[in-house]
Amino acid sequence: MNYVAPLKDMLFDIEHLARIDRIALMPGFEDAGLDTAQAVLEECAKLNEGVIAPLNFEGDKNPSSFKDGVVTTTPGFKDAFRQYAEGGWQGLQHPVDFGGQGLPKTIGGACGEILNSANMSFALCPLLTDGAIEALLTAGSDDLKATYLHKLVSGQWTGTMNLTEPQAGSDLAAVRSRAEPQPDGSYKVFGTKIFITYGEHDMAENIVHLVLARVTGAPEGVKGISLFVVPKFMVNKDGSLGARNDVHCVSIEHKMGIKASPTAVLQYGDHGGAVGYLVGQENRGLEYMFIMMNAARYAVGVQGIAIAERAYQKAVDYAKDRVQSRPVDGSMSTAAPIIHHPDVKRMLMTMRAFTEGCRAMASVAAAAYDAAHHHPDADMRKQNAAFYEFLVPLIKGYSTEMSLEVTSLGVQVHGGMGFIEETGAAQHYRDAKILTIYEGTTAIQANDLVGRKTARDSGTGAKAIAAQIEKTEAELVKRSSANAKAVHMRLKAAREAFVDVVEFIAENTKSNPNAAFAGSVPYLMLAGNLVAGWQMARTLIVAEDQLAQGTDAGFMQSKITTTRFYADHILSRAPGVRDSIVDGAESVNALPTEMY
Amino acid sequence: MNYVAPLKDMLFDIEHLARIDRIALMPGFEDAGLDTAQAVLEECAKLNEGVIAPLNFEGDKNPSSFKDGVVTTTPGFKDAFRQYAEGGWQGLQHPVDFGGQGLPKTIGGACGEILNSANMSFALCPLLTDGAIEALLTAGSDDLKATYLHKLVSGQWTGTMNLTEPQAGSDLAAVRSRAEPQPDGSYKVFGTKIFITYGEHDMAENIVHLVLARVTGAPEGVKGISLFVVPKFMVNKDGSLGARNDVHCVSIEHKMGIKASPTAVLQYGDHGGAVGYLVGQENRGLEYMFIMMNAARYAVGVQGIAIAERAYQKAVDYAKDRVQSRPVDGSMSTAAPIIHHPDVKRMLMTMRAFTEGCRAMASVAAAAYDAAHHHPDADMRKQNAAFYEFLVPLIKGYSTEMSLEVTSLGVQVHGGMGFIEETGAAQHYRDAKILTIYEGTTAIQANDLVGRKTARDSGTGAKAIAAQIEKTEAELVKRSSANAKAVHMRLKAAREAFVDVVEFIAENTKSNPNAAFAGSVPYLMLAGNLVAGWQMARTLIVAEDQLAQGTDAGFMQSKITTTRFYADHILSRAPGVRDSIVDGAESVNALPTEMY
Repeated sequence: MNYVAPLKDMLFDIEHLARIDRIALMPGFEDAGLDTAQAVLEECAKLNEGVIAPLNFEGDKNPSSFKDGVVTTTPGFKDAFRQYAEGGWQGLQHPVDFGGQGLPKTIGGACGEILNSANMSFALCPLLTDGAIEALLTAGSDDLKATYLHKLVSGQWTGTMNLTEPQAGSDLAAVRSRAEPQPDGSYKVFGTKIFITYGEHDMAENIVHLVLARVTGAPEGVKGISLFVVPKFMVNKDGSLGARNDVHCVSIEHKMGIKASPTAVLQYGDHGGAVGYLVGQENRGLEYMFIMMNAARYAVGVQGIAIAERAYQKAVDYAKDRVQSRPVDGSMSTAAPIIHHPDVKRMLMTMRAFTEGCRAMASVAAAAYDAAHHHPDADMRKQNAAFYEFLVPLIKGYSTEMSLEVTSLGVQVHGGMGFIEETGAAQHYRDAKILTIYEGTTAIQANDLVGRKTARDSGTGAKAIAAQIEKTEAELVKRSSANAKAVHMRLKAAREAFVDVVEFIAENTKSNPNAAFAGSVPYLMLAGNLVAGWQMARTLIVAEDQLAQGTDAGFMQSKITTTRFYADHILSRAPGVRDSIVDGAESVNALPTEMY
Repeated sequence: MNYVAPLKDMLFDIEHLARIDRIALMPGFEDAGLDTAQAVLEECAKLNEGVIAPLNFEGDKNPSSFKDGVVTTTPGFKDAFRQYAEGGWQGLQHPVDFGGQGLPKTIGGACGEILNSANMSFALCPLLTDGAIEALLTAGSDDLKATYLHKLVSGQWTGTMNLTEPQAGSDLAAVRSRAEPQPDGSYKVFGTKIFITYGEHDMAENIVHLVLARVTGAPEGVKGISLFVVPKFMVNKDGSLGARNDVHCVSIEHKMGIKASPTAVLQYGDHGGAVGYLVGQENRGLEYMFIMMNAARYAVGVQGIAIAERAYQKAVDYAKDRVQSRPVDGSMSTAAPIIHHPDVKRMLMTMRAFTEGCRAMASVAAAAYDAAHHHPDADMRKQNAAFYEFLVPLIKGYSTEMSLEVTSLGVQVHGGMGFIEETGAAQHYRDAKILTIYEGTTAIQANDLVGRKTARDSGTGAKAIAAQIEKTEAELVKRSSANAKAVHMRLKAAREAFVDVVEFIAENTKSNPNAAFAGSVPYLMLAGNLVAGWQMARTLIVAEDQLAQGTDAGFMQSKITTTRFYADHILSRAPGVRDSIVDGAESVNALPTEMY
């Protein structure tokens, strides 16, 4: 099945929800209006639909393989990555100074969705490279920037993030890799890192590892972690490649999904020490890593949207083709394509509504990110940063959790054929499951939402968002359509449920942390549902207005219908989640460990 | 990880919810009291824990393979099946007259769970054989019974169900396989059948295929389908095996899960016609097939419970072992096993509550089945049959859908390790996905619930169940505990939501079928949630009473806690589902096909 990028939907969000016209007024984004967005997205679609998407199924059948320290990627990947790099796609959002295109995240995020829909395993390599670039831009010395950034931005080299060790997964305080200072200012790095995405591969000349380790004598816990650059090949003064560094891939994992993406175990320093260069200051590694992580978390949320879109397209295709049974309403006298059966419609609409809702949320968050970095007014930058920060765990957590439901429905629409690997629907189901785990599990996102984003300011930021949602409710109330009324009812109920939960979390996080954290993931799911639903409500307002002006009636009507579905079938889950959080903490914690 | 059969929980349900003491009063079940149940379950656990469970992971790594028409099962399967057969397990619920043990389903259902927890791929062979036995017992001639039943009941031969064809999946009206009457009273069968579980294998001497086909000149649609026995090897008068029949396996499928279970494409009659024998009367095949299907649907529901239990045990094991981060309540100064983190508890409790709730529902349904067949009073038989029939789609649909959520949480508890195939959690996630598809997808179960079980009697049967639930509510109201009050509140809300939906379905199925069927699966999920929650509420009443008498305090307290969790976190979903059904039908059906 071919993938077709949903450009119309993306451009709707970019124009009407993210308001790219306002972004184009900001310094540095003067050329980044709607026309640019459209042109970039069309080019992006062309490469991904034509070159990268067709490799997705192939990557599942012929995953990356490991032999004698060398990783060979799926046939076709290397050439596709060359085309990706040559097209300038790696540098899309990165500074012009280092060879990038300096485009806003509002456009870059949508391109990221297209790339991930096309081929999630492939897309992980650029995704991690983006994180490495981000860290060097923020904290790297001029020397490190000069040595590494151009070639990362151009896609000539790729980057990795090395956090996890066997005993240190979610708990980075347990990191044991160590770094010994050398007289020349460099360090020798020792340790084992696991789960390193594209930690070894054959698609680029060099790999730039960003590695967490402890400098000899550093404090225990997270306050003693530093960040290092460790290149696979040493880089000479003239930029040419030198000797092989002492970092080696000893195996790659046998995974349930994203099989084409090599997940490496990397051994540092087994032959005398890997040469590493400190990024920023000693013991501030976690802070820098969070910069990479935050970029990566947004990107992983987008992966959830991307795989949901791909699974949806595949399911629609099958449902239009597969003929089975007569429609229940007697509208046809013979067996019909299964898309005519109400339960198949319900499944497809669920997939569609989740995907569009999360896409709208991610688009609006990207605009906030752009404003947080480019708005001329400092106060507006701060407001937008706070809004973006609140949304990151929702985008990562909710969009990926919903992708599990969507890819499961994708298999279900295919019936028995969905369980057969050759059909391809199962791959999405298997691939998606990593998304709720890597770059911080859903629980880790929820801890962030509870701790840093809600309890720290006693829910002020969360309530400010609720107040914005009330404004949208007020706009809906003014409308006469049945759809606006229905959406208003569900949005109001969900927002009230959210406020109750925010108060519960703010009250309990310190005094009764077990109660607050018992509801952390449900709170994240409720908040994500609400914010996505809110963007759908804004969608309905725009679409009704556009429809009244006679613009693109079929499309606008579809946006209205999808919003109504979101409200009826997804937002309607919110009050029950509130109940389970506010009334249900005790039963989460009551069972003694030995009785499990 | 070893599997340990949850005998205590099973025996609690059998004793207190299914009330085996009452079943043992019925003719034919005189020896089937609690002591028998305990003895049988202990023996069953021994074989499955020791012999069959250890083959589960092996079956995923070394699936059944196909070469030149021959299927070779996973090493160890053949010997394990011999032990299973020699232990008399295939005949557990079948009549003593044919070599079976004639035990009630109340005991047999629990044994089925143990077998499926141990190894779902393995268990499918006996599961399908049970279906074939059921069909022959109901509709087979004395001759067919004499020829086939003893050897199926003993496990010497195995059985299959042949419904699906490439163009006929959920829609059996589209079956094209044909049968030509022969002068000797037999038929020659021609056609292609797909998705035939254990359609070919090396674990038994002969395979007895039960095949749907059309006799030459039969009417179109489901009214022209007949059921045939087609043995792999012809059977001589003396019971010995004769010539190879003209049914051949041409390939097996490459599936996402249950890989050890061979899923065959069978070709009938390519070399002159496969010899088949009519079961019952011509053109009544669908009716007989439904007998097999109903038994199989219950059994597949039990598979959902079984895999949920296995995934739960594995997740608990990991959560007790994996050390990561300090507890949020400051109760430990060092990193703790992750079972001490509230969100891990929430995930494990969700897994546990779903599993115990569905197990309780299945146990009570099994008791109703036993009473429907063995109660001396005709009216009681009828009442119990109606209750059982209502529960079958809930057990099949709800228990399997919940198993997707449970196995997903099982992976999630393992974090990154869950995505690595060697861990084994991923296998459960992949295996479970077939359960919502085969033996009728969840939508097909929901059609049954809406059409035959609700609309046909205008909701009378459904409301009779609601009335029984009200009686349990009345018992809860009399209790003073906070747990009973909380459970009462959620049960009442869920029951009221259910009644609203039943009325909506009863009103709309004929007049607005698109609206009724738009809510069919949500209705099934709501009904399953309610009935399982109701059994948990009954559990709480029993456990509080037992606790007051000082019986097994730790266990009884766990049952109470799990019930409370079920009410707070799962029953609380019900009102939202009601809203989406009653208010949300329009948005399911509104999008024109071309806009998907």
